[in-house]
Amino acid sequence: MLVEFRVIPVGAGEELKEFMAKVLAIVEKSEMDYQLTAMGTLLEGEWEEIMFVVKKCHEEIRQHAARVVTEIVVDDRKDVKGRLKGNVLEVEYVLGKSLQTGGLT
Amino acid sequence: MLVEFRVIPVGAGEELKEFMAKVLAIVEKSEMDYQLTAMGTLLEGEWEEIMFVVKKCHEEIRQHAARVVTEIVVDDRKDVKGRLKGNVLEVEYVLGKSLQTGGLT
Amino acid sequence: MLVEFRVIPVGAGEELKEFMAKVLAIVEKSEMDYQLTAMGTLLEGEWEEIMFVVKKCHEEIRQHAARVVTEIVVDDRKDVKGRLKGNVLEVEYVLGKSLQTGGLT
Amino acid sequence: MLVEFRVIPVGAGEELKEFMAKVLAIVEKSEMDYQLTAMGTLLEGEWEEIMFVVKKCHEEIRQHAARVVTEIVVDDRKDVKGRLKGNVLEVEYVLGKSLQTGGLT
Repeated sequence: MLVEFRVIPVGAGEELKEFMAKVLAIVEKSEMDYQLTAMGTLLEGEWEEIMFVVKKCHEEIRQHAARVVTEIVVDDRKDVKGRLKGNVLEVEYVLGKSLQTGGLT
Repeated sequence: MLVEFRVIPVGAGEELKEFMAKVLAIVEKSEMDYQLTAMGTLLEGEWEEIMFVVKKCHEEIRQHAARVVTEIVVDDRKDVKGRLKGNVLEVEYVLGKSLQTGGLT
Repeated sequence: MLVEFRVIPVGAGEELKEFMAKVLAIVEKSEMDYQLTAMGTLLEGEWEEIMFVVKKCHEEIRQHAARVVTEIVVDDRKDVKGRLKGNVLEVEYVLGKSLQTGGLT
Repeated sequence: MLVEFRVIPVGAGEELKEFMAKVLAIVEKSEMDYQLTAMGTLLEGEWEEIMFVVKKCHEEIRQHAARVVTEIVVDDRKDVKGRLKGNVLEVEYVLGKSLQTGGLT
């Protein structure tokens, strides 16, 4: 399963990098394969291990903000792995050219 | 404004790379700053130019699928630019270490 | 096209009802078919008229918060109308029972 | 916690009402407070009980489609309950008028 999630503290200021840092500290500690982008964090793994990490991130931010909006998008494709990079490589392959992937490919 | 969007054709098969390629062809042609990730495409610019591109992508996929789900997330922060890379660099700065960004940083 | 959107002011307090009221005032003025739920506002119409309303809502909230996250989900199904109520009625029909729809059906 | 989720089968046809019915059967069986809308299902409860239900729905649809996209949005506000109806009533209160809520209020 491929997942993208973001945790948005509401009512704790407009500067979110400190909160993002707390989230990424938790993600790093999980030792899961991940990718940080400007709009969220991508994880690849099984439902339980992913939701365990996302829940920890949500609860961490809950300690610092009266209101938290967390969004999770799951893209679950049977028997396909290595998609953090694979999904992007496939599109480049079809188009027959390199794309702006932030250096991923 | 930073935006992430994805266009999901529903009822046109489970293999989405061909559709993703059509979307990226349109994004490339717009000459806007973008980043393709495993879960969506990030764009940075103004509302009108971004929605113009997203609409074209949506309409392109509409020609190939009876049903299309398009998701758009806007992160609009006054007077801040260069966020495709900046957002990620900031988090690394706060944590004082490199993070898995797919090579972006 | 069926659309759900929400506009989240970031850094302007945890109480969002005043902001939601501004958004709904704009939606009401558009005279479009809509439904307000606990998690967002649903609209039914064409791309341009919908995005015109969503943009106005986004810009209104931008005047009151330094950062705004706006999410838009489009469910576009060719030749099908009356889906604000229809989508829900269909599910009740398949299950052969009334469901908790907040009174919609 | 207030949650909205939707489960989208990809590659199993454009007609989603049968899948939606399976999802709602699971939600009904959970005996949790919920609301079905044209764009998703809203649940109110604690993280674990909500994610348990969402996971069951995701796994159910996984049996019928080779690819499944599930989206979850969490709106977590400390010490506030009864928000399925409350959130909407509050906005009507601020605006001083009834709104189109599908009959919820």
